[in-house]
Formats: sequence, structure tokens, C-alpha cells
Amino acid sequence: MNLVLLPEQTDSTIWQINDARQVSHLKQHLDVKIGDQIKVGVLNQARYLAEVVEIQSNQMIVTPVEQQAIPNKLPVTLILALPRPKVLRRLIMDSVTLGVEKIVLLHSYRVDKSYWQTPFLEQLDHYIQLGLEQAGDVIAPSILLEKRFKPFVEDRLSVWNHSQTTFVAHPYTTDVMPINFNQQCQLMIGPEGGFIPYEIDLLKENGCHIHHVGNRILRTETAVSNILGRLFCA
Amino acid sequence: MNLVLLPEQTDSTIWQINDARQVSHLKQHLDVKIGDQIKVGVLNQARYLAEVVEIQSNQMIVTPVEQQAIPNKLPVTLILALPRPKVLRRLIMDSVTLGVEKIVLLHSYRVDKSYWQTPFLEQLDHYIQLGLEQAGDVIAPSILLEKRFKPFVEDRLSVWNHSQTTFVAHPYTTDVMPINFNQQCQLMIGPEGGFIPYEIDLLKENGCHIHHVGNRILRTETAVSNILGRLFCA
Repeated sequence: MNLVLLPEQTDSTIWQINDARQVSHLKQHLDVKIGDQIKVGVLNQARYLAEVVEIQSNQMIVTPVEQQAIPNKLPVTLILALPRPKVLRRLIMDSVTLGVEKIVLLHSYRVDKSYWQTPFLEQLDHYIQLGLEQAGDVIAPSILLEKRFKPFVEDRLSVWNHSQTTFVAHPYTTDVMPINFNQQCQLMIGPEGGFIPYEIDLLKENGCHIHHVGNRILRTETAVSNILGRLFCA
Repeated sequence: MNLVLLPEQTDSTIWQINDARQVSHLKQHLDVKIGDQIKVGVLNQARYLAEVVEIQSNQMIVTPVEQQAIPNKLPVTLILALPRPKVLRRLIMDSVTLGVEKIVLLHSYRVDKSYWQTPFLEQLDHYIQLGLEQAGDVIAPSILLEKRFKPFVEDRLSVWNHSQTTFVAHPYTTDVMPINFNQQCQLMIGPEGGFIPYEIDLLKENGCHIHHVGNRILRTETAVSNILGRLFCA
């Protein structure tokens, strides 16, 4: 946690930290005392240096001292085949930490239908918070759930592709993923086992660009971070 | 698992798969039958397409059909501050999957001394195997344990720096990490909380280059994959 992210605040000078996870981290990991300055964010608003003015057993009170710059987002919509529930938390958290602007979780042939029933999908806001706190960011990306592959690709992605490029990461192709692209785009990453040929064909027909990043097969989490590192080198 | 990695074999035509994890994956996830062809690697030797000739309850027997190319390694030595034990498995596995040639696990001020006692350090060969099986690779990287920061930097890293560049990832510096470097080098990534100023100074004095990759603070695993994606874009 590189910043304590608070929900939107009404008072502009006195803020309470009530979340047990945050209070315990500040006390036990950072050994925070009254008078210390810590990084505090207000969700979807701004980031501050704040001073600790009171410490209770399960609460801290801080007051903002100075506003700080928030890190830039990457101009990318990340379209991910819905991963196994166990991987979802880390994948959302990492994508948010890396600065992805918008996330689409998409069904695909090799996504087990049961994954859409996982209670972890109700925790997305929490995973976003963890990712923002790691990065030192305060602006939450939007997350869309798209449970039908074909309508999403034909009705929505094909329209996005009129103005922006969609790169699909796929090991079995001859074209290599661009380097240092740094422009608004979509990046699409398949499920474990990859997209099936029918899906790749449908993506091509609807204006997507199919690219590989070498002949090593990466796990989804590894691929997200690796390919974003290659596309966005600002 | 994109390849079944076997220990070194004496017989050149008949190989047994005895590992319960591998047998269960082949049966349950891939639904393998007699006559099917699967990817099989022999550790530190070669990768093959192999035919399944016998299936027992806890064993499969395969015979190699055709040798296959193995993926290239990245020409990089990854020097990592020893992570929390829970993170070690994923970090080693990901680094191996990405193709790192050599790994150094290093002590540093913010590494808890107890981490060096974890039984997970005895599982490194297993984590390497998982990483190779994910990537479809068969060549194990070497892993060195360096329990003292200063002697490692002054006596060994300083010598490596005569012929190769060491890039240290550190958020608080003005120089930005190179893009598409693609040459033999060392990449060094600090612990949670980062290197302390004394360590950064010692690294500079011994010929290391301190670079940032933007103003987002990444977890170690995310940083490894992200920065390797940026340095090596072959």
C-alpha cells in the first residue's frame, strides 16, 4: 500500500481512516505516529500528503497538507477473457496498478461458464482499490462484463476499431506485437489455452490485429504486464 | 502446462511419466488418449513431439516422434531482492517462463532476515520446472543465493559491470529505463519498499545504472514482467 485510498469525502479538512486493513497496515507496517505525513487519496478526486492528527485503536484521523500529482493512465482498454476466479483478483489489481484506463472481462470458448458465477466478481471494486493503493493512483478504471463473445466483437469492438487499433495477443501468428506504440488502443488477451481458431477468424474479420510476442507461452497475468511494458514505454 | 518436462532420460525411445501432477493434468485437463501426440521435454536436453503408447492409473508411457525447437532465452541475469516466501514461487516461475537466463536472489536492507529460512527456498527446482512447462522450454536457468548485499555488489557485480550493463529499477530517479535494449545485461529489482538510499549509492559507485519506468509503484512480479517486456522486444 503506497497510498491510503479513502471514499469520497464531504469535509475538506478532517478525514477518518476507518478501514481495519488500512489502519493495521499504517500501524504495523509503517509504524505511523501522530504528526507523521502519509500519502492519502480520495477516490476519483485527488491525492494528498496528509498529516496524522489522531490515532485510536481502530481509527486514524488525518488532515490534508498538500495536493500531489496523480500518475498518468495508459491510454488502453484491456479486453481479457474472464480468468479463473483465483486469478481474477491479481489480474485486476495488476492491470489497475499498471494504469489501464478501462477493462472489459469477456466470455470466450475456453472460459468455463461457471466462472461467471463466482462471488469474486462482486469484489471488483475492492481489487481496484488494492491496485490504486499499490500504484499511488486515485482514479478507478471502469470494468465492463461482456458475457457473449460474438455480439461483443461484431457490435461493439468492430465499431471501436473504426477509430482505434485492437491488438490481440496470440502465439500462433507471424506478425509481431508493436513496440513503444503509446497511442490509444485496445489490447485483447485470451484465456488459458488461448482463443480458438473460430474466434481468431471472427476478430480478424472485425478489424482486429493478431500479434505474437515470441514463442514462449505466458500466463495471462504475465502477458498483461509484459505486453503493456512493450506497448507503452513513456 | 504447455509441455511435460521429464528428468534426464537414459533410454532414447521409451519414456515414463510418473509424476502424479503431470499424469493427472494430461488425463483430466487434456483428456489424453493412446495414440495422441503431446509435447514432452527432457530437462536440459531437448523438446519433442511424443506419442502416448500406454496409459496406466498413475503412469503414462510415451515415445518421441520428432524433435522441436526450444524457445530462445533472454540474455539477462535477473537480480532480485529475496521476496516474501508467498511471492517466491510465482516470481521464479514467471521469470523462468519469460526466459531469464540466470537469477540471483539477493539480501537487502528491507528483506526480512527470516525469509532466508523459508522451506520454499528448497523448492526452487520445482518452481523452475513449472516455469519451463508453462513456457514450453527445457533449459533450466541457474539460481544463485547471495545473502550479503555489500560483498555481492562490490566483489561480483562491480566486475560484471566491466563488460555488461546493470539496470536497477528504482522509482525515484530522473533517468528512464531503455526500450528495446536486446543485449546481454543485468536487471536488478528491489524489495517491497525499495532499496534504501545507501544501497542505491553503493550500486551507483559500483557502476550500476539507476532507471525508473514511470511514477507508478509496481509489485515485484509486475515489475519483472513489465520491464523485461520493455527491454527485450525481439
